[in-house]
Formats: sequence, structure tokens, C-alpha cells
Amino acid sequence: MKIRVAIMGYGNLGRGIQCALRQNDDMELVAVFTRRDPSTVKVLEEIPVYSADKLMEMKDAIDVLMLCGGSATDLPKQTAEYAKYFNVIDSFDTHARIPEHFAAVDKAASEGGKVAMISVGWDPGMFSLNRLYANAILRDGKDYTFWGKGVSQGHSDAIRRIPGVRNAKQYTVPVESALDAVRRCENPELTTREKHTRECFVVAEEGADKAWIENEIKTMPNYFADYDTTVHFITEEELQRDHAGIPHGGMVIRSGKTGMNGENQHVIEYSLKLDSNPEFTACVLTAYARAVYRMYTEGMKGCKTVFDVAPAYLSPMTAEELRKSLL
Amino acid sequence: MKIRVAIMGYGNLGRGIQCALRQNDDMELVAVFTRRDPSTVKVLEEIPVYSADKLMEMKDAIDVLMLCGGSATDLPKQTAEYAKYFNVIDSFDTHARIPEHFAAVDKAASEGGKVAMISVGWDPGMFSLNRLYANAILRDGKDYTFWGKGVSQGHSDAIRRIPGVRNAKQYTVPVESALDAVRRCENPELTTREKHTRECFVVAEEGADKAWIENEIKTMPNYFADYDTTVHFITEEELQRDHAGIPHGGMVIRSGKTGMNGENQHVIEYSLKLDSNPEFTACVLTAYARAVYRMYTEGMKGCKTVFDVAPAYLSPMTAEELRKSLL
Repeated sequence: MKIRVAIMGYGNLGRGIQCALRQNDDMELVAVFTRRDPSTVKVLEEIPVYSADKLMEMKDAIDVLMLCGGSATDLPKQTAEYAKYFNVIDSFDTHARIPEHFAAVDKAASEGGKVAMISVGWDPGMFSLNRLYANAILRDGKDYTFWGKGVSQGHSDAIRRIPGVRNAKQYTVPVESALDAVRRCENPELTTREKHTRECFVVAEEGADKAWIENEIKTMPNYFADYDTTVHFITEEELQRDHAGIPHGGMVIRSGKTGMNGENQHVIEYSLKLDSNPEFTACVLTAYARAVYRMYTEGMKGCKTVFDVAPAYLSPMTAEELRKSLL
Repeated sequence: MKIRVAIMGYGNLGRGIQCALRQNDDMELVAVFTRRDPSTVKVLEEIPVYSADKLMEMKDAIDVLMLCGGSATDLPKQTAEYAKYFNVIDSFDTHARIPEHFAAVDKAASEGGKVAMISVGWDPGMFSLNRLYANAILRDGKDYTFWGKGVSQGHSDAIRRIPGVRNAKQYTVPVESALDAVRRCENPELTTREKHTRECFVVAEEGADKAWIENEIKTMPNYFADYDTTVHFITEEELQRDHAGIPHGGMVIRSGKTGMNGENQHVIEYSLKLDSNPEFTACVLTAYARAVYRMYTEGMKGCKTVFDVAPAYLSPMTAEELRKSLL
């Protein structure tokens, strides 16, 4: 009997989950739900698409509901709402608001007797796990998280909102010299500017003032002002040809000391290099959806994060197989 | 109330645990047990040293017994024996014999109502965890584990057993070009020889036939014959000066494909760079000793591996603190 999964919200992440489920033969996609008109949703592969209104009617046909909306407005509402009736999983990634999101979802899932996982993906998600493991092991040390090289959707959007900009793509790039210093256990104190640079590829409207646009970008508070930013003006054709992908990645590094007098140094590094940010995030969510279902069948309930899940729950292999082949 | 820990066996690993416990103020070392004459054991810092025979008398004063013997003969006997009476943890690292070790320890710990963790360290241990996570996430992919650059105690010992060799140190070194190919997602099929080289620093007895020793090393079955091996003859002084440490490390890499047609590639890499292999292993064991105790207080019992432990158990922080600061 396969784990029956449904997707709520069919954007890049939802499509990624549809792909990921094809690689996991103990799971099956039973339906996609959307708040748009279902007839306008083009799915990658034949699957029923229903209006979000129909969700409750399918309650008994779904083991895990995977919520693929955005963290700004969708998930803060949806996850707690659906956790009353479904085992759910989301990729809520507004770090500062995780405690309140957890509280709301935990209340709903506990009342409903369901398991709800929040903030699953790579950051928060795999990066968080690696921060925890490295902190528990190297007690006297220092953490560093670098992102990139990769596309920041939020920063690309911010550029596109500037008058005269037709299209744009922004890459976050870790500073190599800072990375090297961290890996050499120099424990540098790094400012925002010293950790990452920002590289922007911008398509301007015809006749737009490029110097003005460039200045608007470079001085934009929060998004760019604190970084060394490079702006390249290119054509729409070049953007489509060279910058169509959504790559990302990064590293979590912790260096620390051991010994009676801290005489020995150690570096733990976890790094990701991803061709497609949403497809990788979808793979992480899919593995944790398996865990959600198993934890539910064992009688657990309430809100969980990656910190609460024993790794064995993620794998389709049995405990014996895991010990034999991967330990 | 601190977690009361005892160490059984006081070699490099036991000393490392004594150091690690000083960095964890929710834990305390209550005693060291040894099979040697306790009066001959010199501890790093003042702590009672008892004969192994006295262990049962201290049963109620110990929350977790950390077993620091070897995997060849000590642990296959000790872990199952002590798991009847104590929560225990070991670093059993003979991969092929893990299933039988698990079965014996699980039986003992289940009967005794205790929690026993086996095969904790970095490989098996953190590397195993990363193999599991990466396999669960990237279902269509390939695993690689590289070791080094680091000292292999077993290979150093093998060289020292050759007549005419006074002392020796052997380094396992990953082949950079193989690593690069893996990181570029080329999914190479690598032979033993293509993954690692072996570098030996040998002190010969006066008048020994160095050419014969070098040949003995390079043709030694299992240990060196399948590798490209380099042998350097040096003096005892040079060995003590340049090769006194016990560094190690390595990488677990998985590359895999996603998308409807495997059009996107991803690389997950976990790497360790360690000045002291035993001190780092000791830090991992110490974090998991905390988990053992907590799982025991929650009523769990039986044999566990790193796959069975929810990450939150490893950290001294509360679940709220973890979500707030590390998620």
C-alpha cells in the first residue's frame, strides 16, 4: 500500500514534488489542488487537478498533504488550517517567524491528532540539521552559513519592481576569501559585505536610464545597500539563454577546538550545489513526507521540525537494510 | 542534575572523552575504569580510576557507560555484556560485523531495560548519517565516500610488523582528480586504486634493507597491493617532529538527478577535516551519550544507531531554543 500524497499549490515547488514522487515507488500522487481555476493548470504528467474547495471531500484519500504555497501569506494561514484534518508538511522559510508558526500549527495538529512538519527544505531544513549536529559535536566553535552561488527570487523581484526594468535575475555569491579563512579555522568576524556579493543581470526597457537603474539597485536598503553589487545590462534573449535556470546552494561550516587546551582544530562542512533550487527542496520535502506518514502511523501527533525526526524515518529501506548498507 | 558518565578503557579515545566532557556542562565524568592496574593509569585531569572489576559496585552512580575499547576483540564482548546493566555507547567500527553486533547488544539492552548505542563516531557515525540523508533526498544518484588525508592506525601497524622497520606512519590520501570528477557529477566508476593513494613514512632499523622493506610494503595484500603507494624513509626524529599527530577526515558525496527527464543535477557533500581523529570521535560519542540518557529517561530501550536518534536529543538546548536559533 503506497503513501497517498496530495499537492496544494502548483508552482515550481509543486512541479518539483510531482517529479520527486516518480522516484519514490512507495509513494503516489493522488491529486493536485489549486486556488486557480483547475482547468487552467497544466500538469507535467496526467493527474487530477481539483479546486482547493474540494479538499475536504478527499480527506480519506490523502495520507499526507504537501503545502507548496509561499511563506509570506499562504503558509501562515494554510498549514495550521489544514493540520486539523490532514498530516501536512510545508517549507515555511521565514526564520524569524518560525516560533509563532510552530505554535499555531502545533495547536492545530495536536487537536486534530495529526502530524504536521514545518520548515522543511534546505535552509531551513538540511542546513539547520547540519548546524545542530555540528554544534552538538564541536561545543567550542563558530558557525558560518554561506549561500550561493544561486538565484535569489526575492532579490530578482526587487529589481523588477524598479521603473524601467523589464526583467532581471540576481545571483548571491559567497566571497571565496572569506570561505577560505573559515576553512582555515581563522574564525573571522565577517560583516554582511564580507560574506556575499550580489550579481545582477538586468534587461532595461528601451530608452531607460541605465545609470539611474544601476544606482537604484546598488543603494536599495536591505536588499543591496550592504553588499558589493555588480550590475550587468543584457538583452532579454541573453537572459533567457544564459540565466533561465534556478540554481542555488551554499555551505554550513563549523570550526571548533578540542583537547585539554584547545590545541586541536576541526572543520565540519556541509555543502550543496543545486541545478534547481525548487526541485531539490521538493526532494527533501518528499523524504520528510514519508517520515510524517510513518510517525503518524506510530501514533505521534503535533508539529515537528527536522530536529524531531530520527533519520531512519526518511528512507524507504528497513532498519536492517540501513544498518547493513549505509551504517 | 548532571548526566553522570563513566569511561571504560583509557586510551586515545578515553582521553578524548575526558576532554570533550569538560566542554559539556550538563555532563560530568564520575570515573575511569581500566583492565590495567589502576595505579599505572595517568589521567589528564584528576578523576578516580578503578579496576574494571569494580564496575558493578558503581552501577547506581553511572547514567551512561562509554566503552572505549577496540572493535577487534574488546567491544564484541563488552558492549553486550554491559548493556544488561548500564546505558552504554560504543564506537564499534567493523562495518561488516555491525548486524551481528547489533543483534547481540539489542538482546542484552532489551532484557536489561537499557539503551545501548553502537557504531558512533564519524565513520560509522556522521558519515553514515550523511549517506542516509543524501540517499533519501536524491533517490536517483550515486554515493562516494573518500577518506583522508589522514593517519590509518591499522596500516601504520601493518608496516611496523615488517622486519627491519622500527617505526612508521601511514597516510590515506584521496585522489584529487577523482574527487573533482565526482563533484562535477560525472558519476565515475572508481577502482580502489583510483580513489585513494597511500603515503608511508618509515623509520628503518640501522642496516636494514630499505629496498626490500619498500617492496614488502607495496606488495602487501589487502593493505597496500591495490593502491599506488609511496614510501619515504625518514629518521625517528623526523617522524616525531613531523608526524606526531593523528589527523584524519574525508568526504561523503552524493550526486543525483531530478526533473521529469533527469535534466537537473545536484551534489550533496559532507566533509570533515580533523586535527585529531580520536578527539573528534570522542566529541561525537559525547553528544550521543547525552541522547542515550535522554532516550532512556523517556522509557526507550534496546540497541540504537545514529539512524534512530532524532537530532534534537544531541543538543543541550531546549526544543524552543533550537527552533529559534538553529532552524
